Amino acid sequence: MRLSQMLFVTLREDPAEAEIPSHKLLLRAGYIRRIGSGIYTYMPLMWRVLQKVSQIVRDEMNAIGSQELLMPQIQPSELWQESGRWDTYTKAEGIMFSLIDRQNREIGLGPTHEEVITAVARDMIRSYRQLPQTLYQIQNKFRDEIRPRFGLMRGREFIMKDAYSFHTTDESLKATYQQMHDAYCKILTRTGLKFRPVDADSGAIGGAGSQEFMVLAEAGEDEILYTEDGQYAANVEKAIAIPVDAEPSPFTTFEKMLTKNTSTIAKVCKKLDCPASAIVKNVLYQATFDNGKSVLVLVSIRGDQDVNDVKLQNALTQLAANYGGTTVIALVVPDVEAQAKWATQKLTVGYLSPALSDDYIQQLDDIAPQFLRLVDQTAADLENFITGADEWNHHMVGANWGTDYPKPERVVDVRKVQAGDKAVHDQSQLLQTARGIEIGHIFQLGTKYSEAMNATFTNEQGEEQPMTMGCYGIGVSRLAQSAVEQSYDKNGIIWPVAIAPYHAVVVVPNITAAEQMAAAEQLYAELNAAGVETLFDDRDERAGVKFKDSELIGIPFRVVTGKALKDGKVEVVKRANGEKLDVPIDEVVALIADWVKAACA
Amino acid sequence: MRLSQMLFVTLREDPAEAEIPSHKLLLRAGYIRRIGSGIYTYMPLMWRVLQKVSQIVRDEMNAIGSQELLMPQIQPSELWQESGRWDTYTKAEGIMFSLIDRQNREIGLGPTHEEVITAVARDMIRSYRQLPQTLYQIQNKFRDEIRPRFGLMRGREFIMKDAYSFHTTDESLKATYQQMHDAYCKILTRTGLKFRPVDADSGAIGGAGSQEFMVLAEAGEDEILYTEDGQYAANVEKAIAIPVDAEPSPFTTFEKMLTKNTSTIAKVCKKLDCPASAIVKNVLYQATFDNGKSVLVLVSIRGDQDVNDVKLQNALTQLAANYGGTTVIALVVPDVEAQAKWATQKLTVGYLSPALSDDYIQQLDDIAPQFLRLVDQTAADLENFITGADEWNHHMVGANWGTDYPKPERVVDVRKVQAGDKAVHDQSQLLQTARGIEIGHIFQLGTKYSEAMNATFTNEQGEEQPMTMGCYGIGVSRLAQSAVEQSYDKNGIIWPVAIAPYHAVVVVPNITAAEQMAAAEQLYAELNAAGVETLFDDRDERAGVKFKDSELIGIPFRVVTGKALKDGKVEVVKRANGEKLDVPIDEVVALIADWVKAACA
Repeated sequence: MRLSQMLFVTLREDPAEAEIPSHKLLLRAGYIRRIGSGIYTYMPLMWRVLQKVSQIVRDEMNAIGSQELLMPQIQPSELWQESGRWDTYTKAEGIMFSLIDRQNREIGLGPTHEEVITAVARDMIRSYRQLPQTLYQIQNKFRDEIRPRFGLMRGREFIMKDAYSFHTTDESLKATYQQMHDAYCKILTRTGLKFRPVDADSGAIGGAGSQEFMVLAEAGEDEILYTEDGQYAANVEKAIAIPVDAEPSPFTTFEKMLTKNTSTIAKVCKKLDCPASAIVKNVLYQATFDNGKSVLVLVSIRGDQDVNDVKLQNALTQLAANYGGTTVIALVVPDVEAQAKWATQKLTVGYLSPALSDDYIQQLDDIAPQFLRLVDQTAADLENFITGADEWNHHMVGANWGTDYPKPERVVDVRKVQAGDKAVHDQSQLLQTARGIEIGHIFQLGTKYSEAMNATFTNEQGEEQPMTMGCYGIGVSRLAQSAVEQSYDKNGIIWPVAIAPYHAVVVVPNITAAEQMAAAEQLYAELNAAGVETLFDDRDERAGVKFKDSELIGIPFRVVTGKALKDGKVEVVKRANGEKLDVPIDEVVALIADWVKAACA
Repeated sequence: MRLSQMLFVTLREDPAEAEIPSHKLLLRAGYIRRIGSGIYTYMPLMWRVLQKVSQIVRDEMNAIGSQELLMPQIQPSELWQESGRWDTYTKAEGIMFSLIDRQNREIGLGPTHEEVITAVARDMIRSYRQLPQTLYQIQNKFRDEIRPRFGLMRGREFIMKDAYSFHTTDESLKATYQQMHDAYCKILTRTGLKFRPVDADSGAIGGAGSQEFMVLAEAGEDEILYTEDGQYAANVEKAIAIPVDAEPSPFTTFEKMLTKNTSTIAKVCKKLDCPASAIVKNVLYQATFDNGKSVLVLVSIRGDQDVNDVKLQNALTQLAANYGGTTVIALVVPDVEAQAKWATQKLTVGYLSPALSDDYIQQLDDIAPQFLRLVDQTAADLENFITGADEWNHHMVGANWGTDYPKPERVVDVRKVQAGDKAVHDQSQLLQTARGIEIGHIFQLGTKYSEAMNATFTNEQGEEQPMTMGCYGIGVSRLAQSAVEQSYDKNGIIWPVAIAPYHAVVVVPNITAAEQMAAAEQLYAELNAAGVETLFDDRDERAGVKFKDSELIGIPFRVVTGKALKDGKVEVVKRANGEKLDVPIDEVVALIADWVKAACA
């Protein structure tokens, strides 16, 4: 493609709307244009990147026998009523766009396709002889995000590869799940990204095991914990580990202490000269279930640890049935205003004890009518601990469960794992932390959808049985942007060769110099003929502008038909490291073709 | 692909929901599955067909320098407010799905992308030096059809290629329009379809010239008129021609005749022994403009001719400004009930004259307050004509304009062209008729959108000027189905080789016969290696079932490793004509590879 004929516009300034480097760079370099909140046009260069990513995904899906199809994006509400997700997705969480058609029927814009594929499978699969099957599609998905941001990272319309598998047994599911895991690793390796698969929370999709594929990048929204030996990696939402040992409490007698102005752990430690790990801290949450009921939750946890909201939400979902619900749709720490109001009502936030009484809670006029106490394992394990006295400016010390406070009824793991914790598989391995961008997620769904939607098959014994399912997603557009987030410098994007929109760009410093143009025209033709996808910067612009643009848009190899021509050479510049070489003109095509071949192998 | 491992299910019976052959066959052969009204899943075989069609389209778009991008499917209402189409598309005509997002903003699901691309162009194009530009995308579009039907022919979600071009001048637009025309011809030729480009009406998209590309098929919704010499072809909605000459009127004196029970032209002719072409018939329509105003329209036309509703709608849109509107959104012949009621009020429908008075109309209590008379050229040309007398059971004969009836104020061309009419370019050429399926439409838009949305560029003189635009669509999914509509027999689909999901299928009559399986395995591998996309029917089914299925799904070439093996041969069957050949096993791969190469050239 000749740049002179292309709709090619770069910006000098960082666009104000963008927060993270990759978003700024994609806008500046003209890869994407914002059309509305969380909605973008992929310009021709971006579309090439996305097609390359898609093709790599397609190759690896086909290689494991997954069959490509295309399901509709608009989905009748009836299917989502069958799975029980319509209300959760359109109302409670509200992440699915929905509309009423001219026949007055409700339609959703697909954020995911479990319902549709299960309907297809139920329609077509009758017998165990037809199983297993794996199907996938690459398609725009929609999410009515609360806060669309970071460009393609969290858009309202984005490209996904989603695959679904159907099985007779859990063993068959696990085999496909492992194939998918390996295919995802191949895909990410081929795209040239640094990544890590991690154990993950299953979230709203449901099911048993799940793993996320994280592209490592500082701006990543997710925190990953991993061990140096490569044996363990997990999303912080899901991570398990052994906390550092608690230090012994300096108090052995149960008594009340005056501790003025110590509403934080740090202040208590200072005032009482005690370790944080000897304290039981007590935190209030308010949880709302999908039936609208709210419950106030007091979580007791070791003073040097924090609560992991996702784990807490999962623990509460386990208890949802007690409150007539099925899942937790909101979990909040009551806001400052509420806390201040409670304080005037003498709820001693900052000095709560693990025994805070039901009666006391019932007095508060504006909070949830129900109350629940949870004790994290780290707190349950403590002896002679320090904790709040349910009285302003006072703590109890030397406290013990069973004597001073009731033995915990519900001991849970809601602790946020942190760097420095000990790995479960080997306590000599301490967890390290990194940030990542989730670009893939694989799930063992089990029979959640097939049971709800009656997708059964006849097994070898002639009995009807629900199919066992897996689902597997990759964010294609998110992957493309995360490549930029992982690989850029002050001059612009540095694309991995395998997903760069073009492999090379031929730059003519001066288009009025006939010799420069002739050499460039020839190289442009020869490079393309040799399979090197090549841009030709034949614009009537200064050489400096062209060099800057080629760096901004991140083309891996730049060929300049400039001064070296007089020696029969051209200058070749590698975008990744800035290395410059003068290469004989009759060797340059083969050289770059080799580099491209090596990078795309 | 091995059929034993594929999600492959064919149906024995025609599905009840399908009306036309191609829809029945695509369902029976397992290519598509209905998910909801006008919503389908493209199963793996169908998806391959669609990808092949898309790739041919892509090749030919790229060949004329059109740049591929991808625009969002969800579109902010603000852009459609700018172009003035939001209300027409979401309310008046209601063909655009729309929804309210969680920020309480209106969003439309794109049926077309003039607004988005114009916003992109306005944002990126500043100077004449950046023009012309042509951009395209291949994408799912959405239409909230009143009556979704015929499978992919009129679905609510369908795949389109839409291209848009931007220019400094009309000449530049015309050059690109011609390139697109030629590219569309190449695309259709490459897909192997019989087609015809025809002059077309521009409809709601607007603009000057437009042509449709019709795939010829009996089930086509469109009527085409064309001349044998290939010089003229048009959609009936748009066609112009010279009607057959009127026969002379037998009456020369203006007088009233008693003509009992002659409310149709045929009855008048019989009663008065006169030719239909000597009659002026007068037809009432009710038109509603986009501002909600209605007008009653009396159209006078020669008795042997009919009114073309699309032409009439266009003629009325020209006059819309007189009524404070911009376009006609509904045009109806008042219903039987209304006509019966009018009859009781003495409006002599069936015996109307071209001079029906305004006063008379005003008396009617339930019709449009405004009244308009239009005279088609065929009626305006008549002398001594017969027409209604505005009195039950009476006609006037020997009537003339200017003496007996006021000279027509508004003479229009609203006549429906019909087979047998004379071509304008050569009156010896009589128009013939055929039916077609519209799969492409190209438009010269002019500055309609660029003016409305302020998409300007600076011309060579330094002045701001709106860009001139064109737009160009191909229905990819509709094209795929129309291939089936054009090419099938009683046994199933007959795909053109270039868009068949696979080129060949290797059938093993008996999978327990080791020699048959070994030969088939080898051919399957060799055919694929030679670039012949090959299915392998290795299912544990009877040979008859396999043969039937291969014919139903329409794979062009079938290779059977059966009885002929003992002579070192395999049977090759051509789907298109049923021809069977016994071919030496070591020649068959090269033979089929040659056939495929020839068909896909």
